[in-house]
Amino acid sequence: MVRIVEVGPRDGLQNEAVPVSTELKLQFIRALVEAGLNEIEVGSFVSPKWVPQLADTAELFAALVQATSHKPQATSYSALVPNMKGLERALECGVNRIALFTAASDAFTQKNINMTVAESLVVFAQVTDAFRAERPDGHVRAYVSTAFECPYAGKIEPAATAKVARILEDDIAVDEISLGDTIGVAVPKEVETLHEHVALYVPQSKIAWHFHDTRGTAIANVAKAVELDYRAFDSSAGGLGGCPYAPGAGGNLATEDLVYFLERSGIETGVNLEKLARASLPVLAALGRAPDSRAQVAALAG
Amino acid sequence: MVRIVEVGPRDGLQNEAVPVSTELKLQFIRALVEAGLNEIEVGSFVSPKWVPQLADTAELFAALVQATSHKPQATSYSALVPNMKGLERALECGVNRIALFTAASDAFTQKNINMTVAESLVVFAQVTDAFRAERPDGHVRAYVSTAFECPYAGKIEPAATAKVARILEDDIAVDEISLGDTIGVAVPKEVETLHEHVALYVPQSKIAWHFHDTRGTAIANVAKAVELDYRAFDSSAGGLGGCPYAPGAGGNLATEDLVYFLERSGIETGVNLEKLARASLPVLAALGRAPDSRAQVAALAG
Repeated sequence: MVRIVEVGPRDGLQNEAVPVSTELKLQFIRALVEAGLNEIEVGSFVSPKWVPQLADTAELFAALVQATSHKPQATSYSALVPNMKGLERALECGVNRIALFTAASDAFTQKNINMTVAESLVVFAQVTDAFRAERPDGHVRAYVSTAFECPYAGKIEPAATAKVARILEDDIAVDEISLGDTIGVAVPKEVETLHEHVALYVPQSKIAWHFHDTRGTAIANVAKAVELDYRAFDSSAGGLGGCPYAPGAGGNLATEDLVYFLERSGIETGVNLEKLARASLPVLAALGRAPDSRAQVAALAG
Repeated sequence: MVRIVEVGPRDGLQNEAVPVSTELKLQFIRALVEAGLNEIEVGSFVSPKWVPQLADTAELFAALVQATSHKPQATSYSALVPNMKGLERALECGVNRIALFTAASDAFTQKNINMTVAESLVVFAQVTDAFRAERPDGHVRAYVSTAFECPYAGKIEPAATAKVARILEDDIAVDEISLGDTIGVAVPKEVETLHEHVALYVPQSKIAWHFHDTRGTAIANVAKAVELDYRAFDSSAGGLGGCPYAPGAGGNLATEDLVYFLERSGIETGVNLEKLARASLPVLAALGRAPDSRAQVAALAG
């Protein structure tokens, strides 16, 4: 069994120019749950000034918590929390799982959150401590972006990524670390090398891999990680969220491609690929986009 | 070093509804050579009645052989030859490398060439013998389609594929066997299993893998095959040739994705990715298609 963390509603929609209605997002998230996905990153409590696309995260949580409260095995919904202010809002909404963001490259955090990596880890620790005080059983996920390469600083030494992971594990004691190939350049050999460095400090069961398929290598990287006994992967239904370069360019690994690969490899996911292939269609239509997932297109045609 | 057999001009164009001019094909092939590809399947000597798209194969050979004759290290051009009649035409054109077609599934050969696999192997042996008599130093490639699964008969036993490979090796003595995941369903585990069966009969150095990326698994399969010490892969520039299901559905593994993966993995290809990414653009434009290769789109944007 492999855990799939669906990031489409947050990571997939955060950079879209076309606004997606709250109703449509809810329909999308419910369709994902119906397809069998049980860990979904719903949105972000970042300032609506910076990411207006995710300004309705509180509303989404209100609707989703209400809708699923009668179920014994509720889906795990999480949200990105950038700082203490975001945490306050998340706690008000009853959020039990938060995700925080840092990177392995100072150039990247400087450009994105105007802090060095070290500075971001200070905020990280503050937010985590405050969250733990309110939610002793809550779950904290740490995103480490540019784990392989940075668009501004170039290749990142595996030891640099491993150092950030070590701090997150030893000093901040997060529950999970998601290692991101943010610009989608890595190949399996690099996954193996990074594994060798990170596994020195962090148990493999606490690592998730967040691959981008920008150059077609994401599934090969998943295959290598599975071989190395990793069991958690991030992905985005319909490949949502990936046009770092041009229309048609791959970004986030598509959940459909991930599910097809795992199931065909004999690894259970609990996800129904046919239902999943249809789940993102209304959102894609609203964005005026074609599906960016080969397995999705094949499933829809089959 | 890995051998890349570029099949775009033949496999990529054979099913296209829009005709591509001979001049445009020549421009395409020359651009591929310029990018560093040195094994190119140019066309097919199948009856123009059946595949009008490839009716100009003789003209292409005349132009290409002329154009490259002054070079000491000429590019290897090959053509598909379906039968004795096709062989006659190929020999007239001075073709030194031929490719023949069979499959691991009777249902597939019946549907495509109206013969059982066994019957196709009889033709195969006749054509090969006649070719050897005329070209003792010539090169014979055998395509084994549906090596993993058949669109009509479902999963193919690895032993069935291995049996066809064994006949091609022992009884027909071809120079190379290209194992095709024709409908693009395989995952690395299946590559490993098929390898275990085929390697009993055929030296690995005589095998090429012909993966399709219909469900996003092609590069993962290449990665596994490389790990198992295979060193020859078929691919199609721009992902040409792949719409078995719907526009946007992946078919042939794109040469750009293959080159990116190999080079980034430290395996030399001799191919310039930037030049390659541009090579298929005029043909894609003529067909009214967007590139179907993630690495190509990224390279063009970069």
